[in-house]
Amino acid sequence: MTTATLPKHYADLIALKRQTGMLGSIGALVSWDQETYMPPAGAKARAEQASTLAGIIHERKTSKKIGDLIAQCEQDPELNHEGSAEAANIREMRRDYDLATKLPNDLVESLAKAQSEAQECWKQARKSNDFPAFVPALTEVMNLTRQKGECYGIDDGGEIYDPLLQEYEPHTTAKDIEAVFTPLRERLSAFIAKLTEQGTAPRVDFLHREIPTDKQHAFGETVTAKLGFDYKKGRLDTTTHPFCSGFGPGDTRMTTRYALDNFPDAISSTMHECGHGLYEQGLPKEDELFGTPLTDSVSLGIHESQSRMWENMVGRSKPFWNWALPVANEHFDGAFKDIDLETFTKAMNTCTPSFIRVESDESTYNLHVMLRFEIERAMISGDLAIKDLPGAWNEKFKSMLGLDVPNDAQGCLQDVHWSFGLIGYFPTYTLGNLYAAQMWETINEQITDLDDQMARGEFSALLDWLRVNIHQHGRRYSAAELCERSTGKPLSADPLMRHLESRVKPAYGL
Amino acid sequence: MTTATLPKHYADLIALKRQTGMLGSIGALVSWDQETYMPPAGAKARAEQASTLAGIIHERKTSKKIGDLIAQCEQDPELNHEGSAEAANIREMRRDYDLATKLPNDLVESLAKAQSEAQECWKQARKSNDFPAFVPALTEVMNLTRQKGECYGIDDGGEIYDPLLQEYEPHTTAKDIEAVFTPLRERLSAFIAKLTEQGTAPRVDFLHREIPTDKQHAFGETVTAKLGFDYKKGRLDTTTHPFCSGFGPGDTRMTTRYALDNFPDAISSTMHECGHGLYEQGLPKEDELFGTPLTDSVSLGIHESQSRMWENMVGRSKPFWNWALPVANEHFDGAFKDIDLETFTKAMNTCTPSFIRVESDESTYNLHVMLRFEIERAMISGDLAIKDLPGAWNEKFKSMLGLDVPNDAQGCLQDVHWSFGLIGYFPTYTLGNLYAAQMWETINEQITDLDDQMARGEFSALLDWLRVNIHQHGRRYSAAELCERSTGKPLSADPLMRHLESRVKPAYGL
Repeated sequence: MTTATLPKHYADLIALKRQTGMLGSIGALVSWDQETYMPPAGAKARAEQASTLAGIIHERKTSKKIGDLIAQCEQDPELNHEGSAEAANIREMRRDYDLATKLPNDLVESLAKAQSEAQECWKQARKSNDFPAFVPALTEVMNLTRQKGECYGIDDGGEIYDPLLQEYEPHTTAKDIEAVFTPLRERLSAFIAKLTEQGTAPRVDFLHREIPTDKQHAFGETVTAKLGFDYKKGRLDTTTHPFCSGFGPGDTRMTTRYALDNFPDAISSTMHECGHGLYEQGLPKEDELFGTPLTDSVSLGIHESQSRMWENMVGRSKPFWNWALPVANEHFDGAFKDIDLETFTKAMNTCTPSFIRVESDESTYNLHVMLRFEIERAMISGDLAIKDLPGAWNEKFKSMLGLDVPNDAQGCLQDVHWSFGLIGYFPTYTLGNLYAAQMWETINEQITDLDDQMARGEFSALLDWLRVNIHQHGRRYSAAELCERSTGKPLSADPLMRHLESRVKPAYGL
Repeated sequence: MTTATLPKHYADLIALKRQTGMLGSIGALVSWDQETYMPPAGAKARAEQASTLAGIIHERKTSKKIGDLIAQCEQDPELNHEGSAEAANIREMRRDYDLATKLPNDLVESLAKAQSEAQECWKQARKSNDFPAFVPALTEVMNLTRQKGECYGIDDGGEIYDPLLQEYEPHTTAKDIEAVFTPLRERLSAFIAKLTEQGTAPRVDFLHREIPTDKQHAFGETVTAKLGFDYKKGRLDTTTHPFCSGFGPGDTRMTTRYALDNFPDAISSTMHECGHGLYEQGLPKEDELFGTPLTDSVSLGIHESQSRMWENMVGRSKPFWNWALPVANEHFDGAFKDIDLETFTKAMNTCTPSFIRVESDESTYNLHVMLRFEIERAMISGDLAIKDLPGAWNEKFKSMLGLDVPNDAQGCLQDVHWSFGLIGYFPTYTLGNLYAAQMWETINEQITDLDDQMARGEFSALLDWLRVNIHQHGRRYSAAELCERSTGKPLSADPLMRHLESRVKPAYGL
């Protein structure tokens, strides 16, 4: 793509967005360094560095000049041919500009202050298992978050949840999510109950054999390079909480974590982050349009679909381990030499209801998420009073996962998200699983020998499909459009249920 | 220090400088990452990121608001008590502001372009040993550099070299440098000639025994931690060219390099960078004045005095190796068990005239530098035509180092500096040695058992002296003032000559 033949106001807008994009890349480096190599005493100044830079970026994003150029572009017929890349780019730039400029400064400041206080308060409350102590701070954050949603504005027939969701899952509503979550919730609960009653859990003991972490790291690099991650354009480092950050053109950084006795956790994290990394590397950032929506990711849900596909659809499959298990044995001095492929794969596909979301398995994870979606939707609308949150949580937990929550620390206090006012963030985790499963069915229809390819350690046809159908488009299409264009159907709960059943049932002898 | 009780215009100025200082810290991170962890394909965007950030920083440094606040502070008697910290801070802020605003934009742009072209041209010319091919590009850079000096302005009785020197060695003139270099040059040439004629070179073969680089790294960390480098506030990484960067409060990063068969090079580089690092960690950056001259280093010469003191005065001394050699043997599986302290120390104090500055020893290094000072001074004044540079170089080399230069690649084309128009940079290397030697004599007068302390691996009294006499002051005093205040005398060539003679003569049996 080139802007050389396009109107000057569009070229000017692109140039400004590119500059701000470059500053955003620096911001990403500043955060990455904080988690990887920054010495501990650097933290205090780092907060000041990050906020100074964030202030400059915000100023540029909300400048009158940007607003004027967008308005000029919107009125130029040459840039607004239906379905054109430019029209999509302008539509999304307008969206970003409005989101960035609609909040009054005093609300932004009050929210930042309330979030910071609520986060500290949450830490204490979780530690001492004292939900009532968290109520005032959480109430304040939720009131301000509700004001934020009102500033963004609610569409006709919509609800306060919708505008808040826009920050994470653009062009999607609470009702859209409900439409797929409701059937998923029912079928998944029933499926898990049946497994628990009738299935026999596979053996997993060998997964906890001790593997030196440097060997786990070397294996992770070998696997991700094979999946298609380009190490000339990226890195893999170690952090407490794994993440992936696409800095910009030619630079995508993944991190993961290792425990001596939990090799599956490390390789799953690594393949998860690699899915994010492959998406970032597949976005057209090396184009001159860098910094504009056409080179940016669609939504958290679509981003998560990429990480979950490589982590779960690929990384827990028998064909993948047919190739990877011998490679692991080479790296790990034959640590799993006595374990056959069947036994190994079964162990990677367990399903056991438990209390903590971040430690849960591929199936029950979605119930944890859907519970949070229902609760936060009621909490922000005002239907659920903050003080009644533990009761609602525990009741839903019992009905969805069949367990009695022992205390709030292991219940509604376990996640940090709500103390930040992140309403609409949780559902993107399961949206990711849903999108991934639906794409996975289409991919397997179109690449009929994908299992054979994976069993030989070949992943390029799969990656090419994602490059062509998802990555290259940036934000040209919404998540829902991308789903329909690439799979031919609107999002449904069926593919994810079929996927989970096909993997977990055999592991439990059903 | 606190600005709470000081006039508002001073507090406002400090706050602005602090913000720009924080952006400068980010710039330092951006450069450090480029040399350490950035994947190769990130380079192109990195240049754009760095220049975007540099543009923002330059804009802030040269803003009218800063200029107005400085002028207001200059007129406020409360801030200008003679000898006060505020008066010094304002004096230096004025200096920085004038240097940053005196150059017209078109000169800055022409110079950047000419430098970039000359650098490419220099690479080719050195490769093909073709000085005439470099003449036009070097001429252009020197003409523009001369214009730069004219914009800065020449004081009465001064010369064009002086204003250019201000970027590296503030408040110093070419004549000041000449006054110490002339006696040093004469005595050093005579000393080296005598060594070559009458001395017996010590054995050095064992210094090239192979030591695994991870063990060299661990040894380097052990030594630098012992010298006083605070690893909670810093790091040591590996790069092609060693450097040290003080990012800001609580964050100072050193880098070094390793070769399997050149352990002395690595430990010397590491101790050199550690000297810079200790200075950076000793500057009062955690003060609220961060970003102002009072928390910044004085000059390149003073910075280099700190690196050279730890590299040479400490790192080539017998007391140091009395402690460090057994530690090295512990780290290196006894690699030097058969070498006694005397033999080891002699090998660390050789002196052999050679052609390449960056590979030269502690003594001849200064002749390389002084030769460049004389030549660049004549070149920028116009006394030496660019085309005559090789002849002048070779003639001086013969008279100073006694060697016939075989070709320009090993002669006047060896350094990149002049292609950047860095006039006044070279002498700061030897100024560093001179300052270090003069401080070293005073330190040994005041800490009478320093040798015994070092022999036990104790360096805190030495570091405390530097903290109190040098580091804490930031730019409150000029380099010359700092020298007089800390040693009681103006800078002289005598201490460096005494130091070199005391170390090298015994190594050569004289």
